[in-house]
Amino acid sequence: MDTAELVVLAVPFAAAKELTAALGARLSGKVLVDISNPVDASLDALVVSPGTSAAEEIAAVAAPGTKVVKAFNTTFATTLVAGRVAGTPLDVFIAGDDEVARKQVADLVTSGGLHAVDVGALKHARELEGFQLLHMALQISEGGYGWASTVKLVAP
Amino acid sequence: MDTAELVVLAVPFAAAKELTAALGARLSGKVLVDISNPVDASLDALVVSPGTSAAEEIAAVAAPGTKVVKAFNTTFATTLVAGRVAGTPLDVFIAGDDEVARKQVADLVTSGGLHAVDVGALKHARELEGFQLLHMALQISEGGYGWASTVKLVAP
Repeated sequence: MDTAELVVLAVPFAAAKELTAALGARLSGKVLVDISNPVDASLDALVVSPGTSAAEEIAAVAAPGTKVVKAFNTTFATTLVAGRVAGTPLDVFIAGDDEVARKQVADLVTSGGLHAVDVGALKHARELEGFQLLHMALQISEGGYGWASTVKLVAP
Repeated sequence: MDTAELVVLAVPFAAAKELTAALGARLSGKVLVDISNPVDASLDALVVSPGTSAAEEIAAVAAPGTKVVKAFNTTFATTLVAGRVAGTPLDVFIAGDDEVARKQVADLVTSGGLHAVDVGALKHARELEGFQLLHMALQISEGGYGWASTVKLVAP
């Protein structure tokens, strides 16, 4: 990890926050990709307070110089492996305060055949995490999507 | 309006809130559909506080018995007229505390050839309005969608 430019925390939110704090200066200068969804067990509410996000909470405990980027939180594992749903490439929404870091993640997304959507500042992780709460709840509801759907901005 | 079962407030958020308060008991017993997006002029922030939504603010000033339902806030006018984007029917996300009212709006959506997605309680208007803030900002950004895209849960 120490030679990596980009680190993906592929663990649940609480663990990601602890891990970020524990790794401390080892993450400094790196792009830290947060893919977590801070949802409660009911899938009816977020475990972060209104007006913040998992990504911002992780950034708050990260060592100075750690470039936190939110990405891949709306792409379920099986859809990500396939890269497409119903023939269309996945949208990967990217938020972060460092423009160069956002671009690095976007390049990674594009090189994997997916569609990068840059939504700007890290605070916009709030809206990405919020919408994914709804998307997750819809997987298990009556007539739900069964973890096979993806969030997409469909355009002509 | 007095004989209608369902009223759509097709005006901006501030006006919708004023209108709801002014109409008072004339809306009682009716389904009141809020389609508004409480975004500021920069399209970078919401004008409602974290932990609430335009729909909830409208419900707070509505007369008792008014059944407020959030719907159609992610469907731009031109896409709604066409009913489809890239050959796929629009998703219309529906939130409200009255289950029967949500079903009435879902039936309206379905009868128009669109795809109704029931996301549950009115509080989930927060996540619908939040994500639409991002969607709106992406219309005017570099390489943006030009008000021609729609938010869709794409499934196999």
